[in-house]
Amino acid sequence: MTTQELVAQIKAKQSFLCIGLDVDLDKIPVSLLLEDDPIFAFNKAIIDATHHLCVAYKPNTAFYEAYGLKGWQSLQRTIAYLNETYPEIFTIADAKRGDIGNTSTMYAKAFFEDLEFDSVTVAPYMGKDSVEPFLAFKDKHTILLALTSNQGAFDFQTQALQQKAELYKTVLETSKTWENSEHLMYVVGATKAEFFKDIRAIVPDSFLLVPGVGAQGGNLQDVCKYGLNSQVGLLINSSRGVIYASNEDDFAEKAKDKAEELQQQMAEILQNN
Amino acid sequence: MTTQELVAQIKAKQSFLCIGLDVDLDKIPVSLLLEDDPIFAFNKAIIDATHHLCVAYKPNTAFYEAYGLKGWQSLQRTIAYLNETYPEIFTIADAKRGDIGNTSTMYAKAFFEDLEFDSVTVAPYMGKDSVEPFLAFKDKHTILLALTSNQGAFDFQTQALQQKAELYKTVLETSKTWENSEHLMYVVGATKAEFFKDIRAIVPDSFLLVPGVGAQGGNLQDVCKYGLNSQVGLLINSSRGVIYASNEDDFAEKAKDKAEELQQQMAEILQNN
Repeated sequence: MTTQELVAQIKAKQSFLCIGLDVDLDKIPVSLLLEDDPIFAFNKAIIDATHHLCVAYKPNTAFYEAYGLKGWQSLQRTIAYLNETYPEIFTIADAKRGDIGNTSTMYAKAFFEDLEFDSVTVAPYMGKDSVEPFLAFKDKHTILLALTSNQGAFDFQTQALQQKAELYKTVLETSKTWENSEHLMYVVGATKAEFFKDIRAIVPDSFLLVPGVGAQGGNLQDVCKYGLNSQVGLLINSSRGVIYASNEDDFAEKAKDKAEELQQQMAEILQNN
Repeated sequence: MTTQELVAQIKAKQSFLCIGLDVDLDKIPVSLLLEDDPIFAFNKAIIDATHHLCVAYKPNTAFYEAYGLKGWQSLQRTIAYLNETYPEIFTIADAKRGDIGNTSTMYAKAFFEDLEFDSVTVAPYMGKDSVEPFLAFKDKHTILLALTSNQGAFDFQTQALQQKAELYKTVLETSKTWENSEHLMYVVGATKAEFFKDIRAIVPDSFLLVPGVGAQGGNLQDVCKYGLNSQVGLLINSSRGVIYASNEDDFAEKAKDKAEELQQQMAEILQNN
């Protein structure tokens, strides 16, 4: 999917909501556990109920790998269902991969070719040659971890480098020089809305994937104030806040209500911007 | 597996060799492609031929994920075969994971509980709460990326921090303060043997997993000169150099020869140390 197609979808739906599909079997309605593939059954119900209110879905691969082969199969079924049924949706494999060159190429093949995701999240620690293999894929997007939403972000990411800016800013600056860097997006945690101003000074045009609105304490208005650009340029993720709005049989309906609430707030922001 | 058991194995075998099981279907003997599970068939032959010469195997998950569900199944079969047949072997899931707390717990479950690996490689970029969930597992080991063997290591890892040491040294220093840090090992690339002296000053007792000897240009003697400690404290990895020593039907025998060559060099180093 091209960035233009993503932007067109955002404008049509008046939403820049991304829903995180982080399925934990301990948290879904017990009635689903009787299904042949409870994780896929849960995802399908959530997707069918919310696809018109969001522009992206983001399964975090950890939640699938934890269930082994069956989990990987559920992930495969989920992305296949999305691509077949709602091809307009932007799909994100939240995998946080990154390795030396030839190995990153294998990861890129896994997520872009085998599973056919539109994008994948990648960790920057190993530098240029660990990221460029992902960037080489046309019409695919690499979402680089810049400033994450957890407490540990302060361990290294916000540390200042000698004669350079903080590590996360140096990651942003440096990544702009990599080949095919126009395929880059960035993960920026919403718990630090005040940082968005500095980030926009470095990457004014890039899309930012923002976790941590809602459950993790980030504020949508604050993020939008500093983070929106002329092409919207934001994907706001909510995982638990939407998909676990209820753990009864009405879970899909309640997830829809929650997604609708967020979409309405986004529509209002877009209209006033 | 405890560190003591690993050290005992090293001393008994006079080897600190780790063999990387990075299987690429384009590089294995064509005769294996007729097998039901060519990747597992290849791994099993390599393992049966080399298990007495090495102390660890390290499948890189990228090479399995690239083949989708079938690849994940091959990984599962490989680790199950290792645990059943050669339980004395130290197993490393080279997965380079790392995510916010509850998500890292899911990855830890995937590799430590579902697949039953002894250890997993983890990226440090997201800090303390992204690594501690792995460290919480008793008799399991977390191998943190410190200084990697690729060119991109110079993008961020070797950059000096203000009022602190270079990023990779700060990662080493900081990680020592994390809960259960006695379960930590570190990835240190062998292409930078001169750095081992500084690293040993920070983590004198930890095991270091060293990729990049052989194909990537690192020198075994140089690494040992600065890297060995009283408990050996090194695992030297070779992947392509061993497993692709031949791509004919004698591949397992040739892999054994190559592994034996490395083991002999290691035995000599251990005897002279």
